[in-house]
Amino acid sequence: AVPRGFRALDLESVKHYVAARPGLQQRVGPADSVESWSVREVGDGNINFVFIVEGPSGSLCIKQALPYVRCVGEDWPLTQDRCRIEAEALGEEAAVCPAHVPALYLYDPAMALIAMHFLAPPHIILRRGLIAGATYPALAAHLADFLAATLFHTSALKLSTTAFRQKIAQFTNDEMCRLTEQVILTEPYITAKNNRWTSPQLDADVAALQSDVAARVAVSELKSLFIGRPQALLHGDLHTGSIMVTDTETAVIDPEFAFVGPMAFDVAKILANLLLAYFSTDGHEAASGQSREAQRAWLLSCMRDIWSGFTSAFCRLWSEHAAAGGDLYPAALVGPEAPAGPATLAACQAAFLEGLWGETVSFMGAFVIRRLVGIAHVADMDSIADPDTRAACERRALRFGRRMLVEGSRSGLGSVAALTEAAEAARAAPSS
Amino acid sequence: AVPRGFRALDLESVKHYVAARPGLQQRVGPADSVESWSVREVGDGNINFVFIVEGPSGSLCIKQALPYVRCVGEDWPLTQDRCRIEAEALGEEAAVCPAHVPALYLYDPAMALIAMHFLAPPHIILRRGLIAGATYPALAAHLADFLAATLFHTSALKLSTTAFRQKIAQFTNDEMCRLTEQVILTEPYITAKNNRWTSPQLDADVAALQSDVAARVAVSELKSLFIGRPQALLHGDLHTGSIMVTDTETAVIDPEFAFVGPMAFDVAKILANLLLAYFSTDGHEAASGQSREAQRAWLLSCMRDIWSGFTSAFCRLWSEHAAAGGDLYPAALVGPEAPAGPATLAACQAAFLEGLWGETVSFMGAFVIRRLVGIAHVADMDSIADPDTRAACERRALRFGRRMLVEGSRSGLGSVAALTEAAEAARAAPSS
Ligand SMILES: Nc1ncnc2c1ncn2[C@@H]1O[C@H](COP(=O)(O)OP(=O)(O)O)[C@@H](O)[C@H]1O
Ligand SMILES: Nc1ncnc2c1ncn2[C@@H]1O[C@H](COP(=O)(O)OP(=O)(O)O)[C@@H](O)[C@H]1O
Ligand SMILES: [Mg+2]
Ligand SMILES: [Mg+2]
Ligand SMILES: [Mg+2]
Ligand SMILES: [Mg+2]
Ligand SMILES: [Mg+2]
Repeated sequence: AVPRGFRALDLESVKHYVAARPGLQQRVGPADSVESWSVREVGDGNINFVFIVEGPSGSLCIKQALPYVRCVGEDWPLTQDRCRIEAEALGEEAAVCPAHVPALYLYDPAMALIAMHFLAPPHIILRRGLIAGATYPALAAHLADFLAATLFHTSALKLSTTAFRQKIAQFTNDEMCRLTEQVILTEPYITAKNNRWTSPQLDADVAALQSDVAARVAVSELKSLFIGRPQALLHGDLHTGSIMVTDTETAVIDPEFAFVGPMAFDVAKILANLLLAYFSTDGHEAASGQSREAQRAWLLSCMRDIWSGFTSAFCRLWSEHAAAGGDLYPAALVGPEAPAGPATLAACQAAFLEGLWGETVSFMGAFVIRRLVGIAHVADMDSIADPDTRAACERRALRFGRRMLVEGSRSGLGSVAALTEAAEAARAAPSS
Repeated sequence: AVPRGFRALDLESVKHYVAARPGLQQRVGPADSVESWSVREVGDGNINFVFIVEGPSGSLCIKQALPYVRCVGEDWPLTQDRCRIEAEALGEEAAVCPAHVPALYLYDPAMALIAMHFLAPPHIILRRGLIAGATYPALAAHLADFLAATLFHTSALKLSTTAFRQKIAQFTNDEMCRLTEQVILTEPYITAKNNRWTSPQLDADVAALQSDVAARVAVSELKSLFIGRPQALLHGDLHTGSIMVTDTETAVIDPEFAFVGPMAFDVAKILANLLLAYFSTDGHEAASGQSREAQRAWLLSCMRDIWSGFTSAFCRLWSEHAAAGGDLYPAALVGPEAPAGPATLAACQAAFLEGLWGETVSFMGAFVIRRLVGIAHVADMDSIADPDTRAACERRALRFGRRMLVEGSRSGLGSVAALTEAAEAARAAPSS
C-alpha cells in the first residue's frame, strides 16, 4: 500500500519540498531564493525518479520511489519499501566504507524518498565513461575495498549469528528479489514475452540456450543460492550503471535491491558488466575507427585487480578479526591463541575463496546472458548501431557467458587470470 | 521475558489447568472426576517438562517450556518462544504428514505449553527400544515419508519464494539455533568446559581431534550451512530420542529446534543416531552375552532404506509438482510441456541429490562426534557400564565420525551402500 501522505514530486514541487525542510534547504540556498533554484530530473535508470536541485549555496540529489516501475508504468507495480531498503543499505555501507558511498541526508518513509549528496560532474556513470572509451586507474582498488568492507562486516564472519539473523529479517526485500529471480534467473532460459535480442542474427543462439539442459541446471543452482544462501548484506545491483566515477573517485549508488544473499552475487555482477564492456569494444572500434586496444587491456586488468584486491582485503579483515570475530569462525577455533588456530584460519580462508570463485564465475555467466537475451540490455551493446556488428559482439559474449555459467571454475576458468585469458581467446574467435 | 500470566505447572496444578479447559477436560474425564485423575511427569528430555494426565475418558500429554534449560536450571536461561516454534512446527508437519506427528490440541502462549495426543504404550522412545535390542520393520519407510513430506512441502521447490521467505521469518529460532551452533558445531572442536568423554581412555583421541585442522575446516563449513543455507523447514532435533515407535507406528515429537535450514541436517541427524546405536552394539553384546548381529544388520539396512526411501519419495513429489511447483524450479523450466523440461528436471534432481548426500555425510560426522565428546551424550553408549568396553565402541565411532565429517561423499563414502559398508569395516577394525 502507498504510504499515507505520499505524493509524487515534480520539477516544481521538489523545490518546495526541499525549502520546507531546513536540514535540506540550507544545503541549497536561502529559503527566499527558491524561485532561483534550478531542478532537473536525471533518472536514466529504469525504476525511480531522481531530481538534482541546485541553488546559490549548493546542490542536492532527491530520489523518489513511485509505486510502480518507472520505465513500464502503473502496469508493473513495485513496493515503495525499496526506498527504505536503499536508505538502510546506504547507512550500512557508509558505516564501513564512507569513501565510496554518497552521504545520506534524509529518508522520508511517507514520501518514499531519500535526499543525498549530489555527485557533481565530472562524476559520470561508469557505464557511460566506458562506452566513451575511458579508463579509470583508481576504480579497481576502490571497488575492491567497497566489496571487502561491505561483505565482510555484514557477514557472520564479523557479526554474532543473532545480529546476522536480525540483518536477514531487516533486509527482507521480497519484491525486489522476485524481480531478480524473474528477469535474471528465469526468463532468459524460457520463452518469455519480456525477452529480446538482436534478431534475426541471434535467433539460433537463443533457441539453443533455451533448450540447453546444462545451462538450465546451472541457473537453477544459482537461483537456489540467490534464494537460500544468506552470507552478507549485498548491494544487489552492482553493475556499471550503479557506480559513479571520476579519475580519482568512485561512488556506489542505488542499493535498492539490497538483501542478505550470496557474496558471489555482488562480485560477479560488477565483473560481468566489465566483461560486457570488453566484448562491446569491437563494435565501438568499428564505428569510430579508433583503437580500443588499451581500454581492452585495462578492462581485463581491472577485473583481475578487483578480484585480487577484494580477496586480499577481505582476508586481511578476517585475519584482523580472528581474535574477536563473529560466530561463524570463533576465536577459539581460528584465533592466534587457539591450538592450530592460525593453520585453521589459513585453511578456512583458502576453502572459502575457492568456493567463492566458483560461484562468482557461474553468476558472471548468468549476468552476461541476461543482458543479451533478457528484458534489460546494456547500453555498451545497444549503442552499437550496426546490428550485424552488434550481433557479432553479443554472440561472443553469449557463448562465453554460457561457458562461465555451466563450467564455473572448472575446466579453464580456475582463476581470474585464466578467466581473462579465456575471455581474450573468446573475443578473438570467429563470431559465426 | 517470561509471558504475563505464566506459572510453572506441577503434578497437582496440571490437573486443574486441564479441568478448566473444556476442550482438554473432555478428553480426560468429567470435570467432577478430577480427583481420580492420575498425573505423572515423564520428561526424560533435557529441556522441558512433560506431564501425562489420565482419567476415566482418556489421556493427554502436556509439555511446558520453563524459561531455562531443565537439566541445568536457571543458570542456563532459554527462550520460551521455543514452545511457539514447537506448536507451529507440529502444525506444519501435521499438514503434510499427519500419520507421523502427534495431534496438537492446544497451544497456550502465556503458559508456554502445548497439549497433544499421548502416545500410549507400547509406544516407546526409539533410542530406548534400540538399546534394548529391538528392531522396527516399519521405521525406515515411515521416516522416509516424514522427511520427504516435511522437507519438500516447506521448500521453494513447492512454495513461492514469497511464502518461503515468510517461513524463514516465522521460524527464526535464534536461541535454539545458537545452542546447536555452540554444542554441536563448536565445542567438540575446542577446549570447552561443557565437553566430556570417557577418560582417560579417549584423552588422546580427543586431543587429536581438537587440533585437527581438516576437521575444524569441515565443521566450519557445516556451521556456514547451518547459519546460511535455508532450504526447508527442519525438525532440527531429529535423533532417536525424538521418535516414538511401536512395531507398526512411528511418531516424531519435539520440534522445538525447528528453523529453515539445510535439508541435510535432518537427514543426517537420524542416520547418525542409528550409526551410534550400531557402534554401541558390541558393548551391549559384551554385557548381555546375547548376539546383536541381527540388529546390526537391520540398523544398516534401516539407514539405507531411509535414504533410498526418502530420496525416491522426495523426487516423486518434486516430479508430481513439476507442472505447478514452487518458484525454485518453475514449470516453464522443468515442467512436462517445457522445451527440454523432463531432461532438465532429471538433471536437476540428480545434481540436487548428489549435493545433498555430500552434506548429509559430513553432518553425520559432526553428529556422531558431538555425542562422544560434547555436552550431551547418548544413552546407547552411556549405558555400556564397563568403561573400557564403552571406550572401544566410542573410539571406533569417533574415528568413523571424523572420516565422514572431513571426507563427506568423497573417497569411499559416495553412496549410502558404500557408507554402511565402510561402517562395517570400521566396526571390525581393532579399537586401539
Ligand atoms: N547521488 C547522485 N549524484 C548524482 N547523480 C545521481 C545520484 N544518484 C543518482 N544519480 C543519477 O540518477 C540516475 C538514476 O539513479 P539510480 O539510483 O540508478 O536510479 P534507479 O534506481 O532508477 O536505477 C543515475 O544513473 C545517475 O545519473
Ligand atoms: N506426545 C507424547 N506422548 C507420549 N510421551 C511423550 C510425548 N511427548 C513427550 N513424551 C515423553 O516425554 C519425553 C520428553 O519429551 P520431549 O518432547 O522430547 O522433551 P524435551 O524437549 O525436553 O526433550 C519423551 O522422551 C517422551 O518419553
Ligand atoms: Mg540504477
Ligand atoms: Mg535502482
Ligand atoms: Mg526431546
Ligand atoms: Mg526438545
Ligand atoms: Mg544429534
